[in-house]
Formats: sequence, C-alpha cells, structure tokens
Amino acid sequence: MKIAVDAMGGDFGPRIAVEGALQAVREFDLDILLVGVESLVKKEFDRLGGGASRITIIDAPEAVGMGDGIFAVRRKRRSSIRVGAELVKNNRADALVSMGNTAAVVYISRKILGALQGVNKPALSLLVPSVGGLTLLLDVGANVNCRPEDLEQFARMGKVFMEQILGLREPRIGLMSVGEEESKGNDLTKEAFERLAASPLNFIGNVEGKDLYSGKADVIVSDGFTGNVALKVTEGVVEHLFSMARREIMGNFFAKIGFLLMRRNLKRLYKRLDYAEYGGAQLLGLNGVCIIGHGRSNSLAVKNAVRLARDFVARRVQDRIREELAGAAGGVSLG
Amino acid sequence: MKIAVDAMGGDFGPRIAVEGALQAVREFDLDILLVGVESLVKKEFDRLGGGASRITIIDAPEAVGMGDGIFAVRRKRRSSIRVGAELVKNNRADALVSMGNTAAVVYISRKILGALQGVNKPALSLLVPSVGGLTLLLDVGANVNCRPEDLEQFARMGKVFMEQILGLREPRIGLMSVGEEESKGNDLTKEAFERLAASPLNFIGNVEGKDLYSGKADVIVSDGFTGNVALKVTEGVVEHLFSMARREIMGNFFAKIGFLLMRRNLKRLYKRLDYAEYGGAQLLGLNGVCIIGHGRSNSLAVKNAVRLARDFVARRVQDRIREELAGAAGGVSLG
Repeated sequence: MKIAVDAMGGDFGPRIAVEGALQAVREFDLDILLVGVESLVKKEFDRLGGGASRITIIDAPEAVGMGDGIFAVRRKRRSSIRVGAELVKNNRADALVSMGNTAAVVYISRKILGALQGVNKPALSLLVPSVGGLTLLLDVGANVNCRPEDLEQFARMGKVFMEQILGLREPRIGLMSVGEEESKGNDLTKEAFERLAASPLNFIGNVEGKDLYSGKADVIVSDGFTGNVALKVTEGVVEHLFSMARREIMGNFFAKIGFLLMRRNLKRLYKRLDYAEYGGAQLLGLNGVCIIGHGRSNSLAVKNAVRLARDFVARRVQDRIREELAGAAGGVSLG
Repeated sequence: MKIAVDAMGGDFGPRIAVEGALQAVREFDLDILLVGVESLVKKEFDRLGGGASRITIIDAPEAVGMGDGIFAVRRKRRSSIRVGAELVKNNRADALVSMGNTAAVVYISRKILGALQGVNKPALSLLVPSVGGLTLLLDVGANVNCRPEDLEQFARMGKVFMEQILGLREPRIGLMSVGEEESKGNDLTKEAFERLAASPLNFIGNVEGKDLYSGKADVIVSDGFTGNVALKVTEGVVEHLFSMARREIMGNFFAKIGFLLMRRNLKRLYKRLDYAEYGGAQLLGLNGVCIIGHGRSNSLAVKNAVRLARDFVARRVQDRIREELAGAAGGVSLG
C-alpha cells in the first residue's frame, strides 16, 4: 500500500510531516510518497537520518499556505495538495494525508477526485472525544447548504465509517437539532428526521448541541454550516476556559501551588481534547481516500493519520459506502 | 414600576423566586407581582418573614413543568407564565420575569403579547461572558427558520439592547458564519452579509464559532437553529470538561491536593460561565418586556433578572427598537 503525505501542510512545515512519515514506515507495512518542495523535504529527511527505503520524495514546487484563500489555492497548480490528489487519482497512491489548510484540501480533492458514485456531496467528518468513546460529527464544513437527502447520505456514510474503522455494530445515529422531540428543528432537519426514521439505520432521533460530548450517539449528522459552528464553538470554549482558568489561578498563591501539583493531569486532559490525537478529519464519499490532519499536528498525529488512511483502504470503506448507498437508492439491498 | 415574576418557574420552584423577589424590592424602587399557585407562594413568603408591602401575590393555579412540551403548555390556560404575560398585556405589569421552561415562555409570550410593530420575528437573545466583556448572541432558539431580513432585524435589535442596557456606543456587529471572508457562508448568511454591509450598523463582517467567546464582536447574529446549537455545545463542553477534569484529578494524590487548593478559584470560574449570573435571556422585539432566567437560577439571579427588566423598561428599549426599525424600513431616519 502507498500513502501520499503532503509534506508542506501544517503549521510546522516539512519537519513534522517527515518525522511522522518516518515513524509510520517503521511501524506499519506500507510505502510513503512524501509530496513537497523537494529541496526542503530532502533537507529534513537527511537531518533525521534519511535512508528509509520505503519513502519516496515527490516534488511539488508550490506550497499552499495555511491562510491562503481558495483563489490563491486555485492558481497553484503544482501545490503539494494538488500533486498528492493527482497521485491518488492516477492510482499511484492509495490515499492522501494532509495536515494542510482544510478548506484547500477539501476544495482540491473534491475537484480532482470527485464524488464516489451515488454520493451527492462528499462530507467532512471528524471524531470528537465524548463520554465513553468517540462520536463522529459530519458534515463539519464541506457543505454549507444541504438538503434532507444529503443528511441521510451523511448518516449512511458515517455508519459505514464507524462500523469499518471503529468496529461498532449498528452505530447509533443522531440528528443535530434544537430539541429531542420529533417536532423540534428547522425545515431541513424535520424532513431529514422523517427520512432517517424510515430508513433501516439505527436512528435514535434528534440530539442537541450538548450531545456532541455526551456519548448519546455514535454518529451525529448536521449540515456543514451548523457542524462547523459547533466545532469552532468548542475550540473557542476550550481556549477561553483555559485562559480564564490560568488568570484566575495565577492570581492566588495557594491556587498556583495547586495548579502546579495537577499540571501533568491537566496537560493530559488538554491532549485528549485535541482532536489531532484521533488521526484527523475524513472526507467521506470522495472518489479516493483523503485524511486531513489538524494544522497543529505533531509527528504522532501525522503517524496516526497515516494509520487511519491505511485502515480506510484495507477495510475497503469506499466499497462499503458505495454498497450502502446503492442499497438505499435502488431500494434493492444485496447485503 | 411593576414587575411580574413567575414564581413557579425554575428547577427549585417558588422558594428561589420568592427569595429573589424579596431581595429585589429591598434593593430597587419597584413593586413585584408574584404569580403562582397562591398557597405555595404564600407559604414561602411567610416562611421568609413576609410583610413586604411592595409584593402582591397573584394566583395562577396551574404550573408549567420544566419538561412540559408545547402541547401541555397550550392546555394550561391558568399557568403562571400565561397569567404573567396577560398582566403585561393588560398594562397591569411593565415586564414579565420567568425562570421557567424557556420554550414555554417564548411560546406563550409571543402568543399573548405578539411582536412589536415592524418586527418580523421577536428574537431570543443571551449575553455570554467573552474576553473583555459580554457578547450578545441572537437568535438562540426562538426562530429556527430565518430569512436574511430577519438577521438584519436581529442585528438592529441587538445594537439597541447593547446601547441602552450596557451603554456601548456603536456596538460591533458580527455575523455567525464558517469563515471570516465575505465569500464564506451559506445562502442565508451570504445575503444577510450584503444587507448588513449596506446598513449604517457598525458591521465587522463574518465571525466564527470560536468568536462567541473571543470578544471580537459585541453582538453576534445567527438564525435560531445555529444559535441554539452553539449555545448547547458550550453547555456540553463545559460540563464534559469539568467531569473529565474531576475524573482525571481524583485518580492522583498530588493532583487531588492541588485541586483542593484551587477549588475556590475554580468555583468562581464556573460561576462566571453560568449565564444566569447576567440576568437572563431577553426576548427582543416582543410587544412587552420579557426576561427569561436560567432554570438553575438562584435568588441572586432572580434579583438580577428583575433589575434587567427594570432597566429595560426605564431605558425605553422597546421605543428605541421601534425607532431603529422604523428608520430602517422606511428609509427615512428621524434620529
């Protein structure tokens, strides 16, 4: 198996990507194509000892910045993200892993790879740590305007992902809304509710914003606008809370000693909340495997993203999604 | 000035409401109509020493439960919320304060009082603690389906509230979206962006979920579906974080000592995050003043909600909203 890794993405550039790739080939049975500005990638590679025979550097002379808009992204025809997506398209790689600018990766990979047969809208999905496990939220920003049938497809794709990757049976599907009762919601969710209730999915009904972390559902479906706001609110709360806590605590001598005593535990907690720990976000329903890591990723997160890409390919998630949607669309189930 | 206080609302029933009302009449120059099941309210009143000449008990034999659905609410024609709203409608009270079931208060007060002249949709607004101050988010759930012109009205009403109640000049208005650039957003926000940019408001453009707490905007407008999800995600994160922290910390001896040393500071922090501290949520654009406190309110929060209702009336927020919207709609500004 060959995984293309975008070496230019992320806040720390090639260093972290190269480190992560080296760790991955040491641990997993796969080859890595490191895509990026050759001179820069090679420098990091040599610095880290190089010599890994299962890593190949692929030159991509342009880099997409973390702050680049879609307009700039479109012009860079030799960017590492684009070259990586083309490797997947031409069957030279089985999957693309990038820690880059999420909007750019979504834009380019959809443009180059397109949607899986039967998929209306590939969705960006993310695992968040919840009580007792992990909850998959989708869409988190790839599709800001959705129809009820799109939400149903998200639910089906999320189900397949949780079955194949996390090994869940009959994952519980929740619909993000403003109240638990069926009558609660906007026009979009009310119609999606009916579709989901009529489907063979294990649909548990509406869930609320707080259930993103309550562990009530394994998969929560949402339009990409709401999902993105929900995710970014989380980021804001965590950041704000920690900075408030620091200010509150540092003003008091005893609290400060207390903080020092529990620092290691708080750090571990903070890490658990950092979603890069779980491999990354996935584009589900794309005609090709694409994993997007958090820009702040460290090398461990890069390695985890590569492992997720490997599992995605090995467990044939793409085929399972195609089957799930074919069964739904045609009304004829072969499963 | 006369404020009607729903004595039956909230998780703790009449006790907290009566305590808060007593504190309010001691501190502020106003009268309170305590609306609730007379025997229960009177018992609490007597227990607390009674005798406050500026409090009158108004009997409302039915109580709306915190979990009652709209169907149950509609049937209870003598509920404390309904009787309170009717007092406002009949000019026997200047404002209604309730710690009750938010959905029930929104439903009944809209039904009984209707919208202010020129207002399409009264909006539920809430002050959240942000870096450097408070940010008003609206709508947080009264209107799950919105049009661009509704979002513009929300912005105008929010502006008036922040000017009159918090004394801000030219409050910064942000539009909740999925990216800062004008091009980011769904169909609704893109059109709302254009309207806001063309208005005389101090519109700072799109903001993201994380800006709910960053202090970047004084007012953030959103459709009620997204606003409600954003708010409930916050609740979920805070709850989840504290329970994770407790588990993490209690497993370790030193961390436990550390936690005990900083407990008082953490409690203060938790209180700051509890939005009941800030008086409550307000229905803006209703033809009558209505403040909704958090169900977990203590007597201090009830008193604060009464003070907010008083300021709302004294500073003529309703008149200012009418003027603001009349200026906008007619294209003729008298201000």
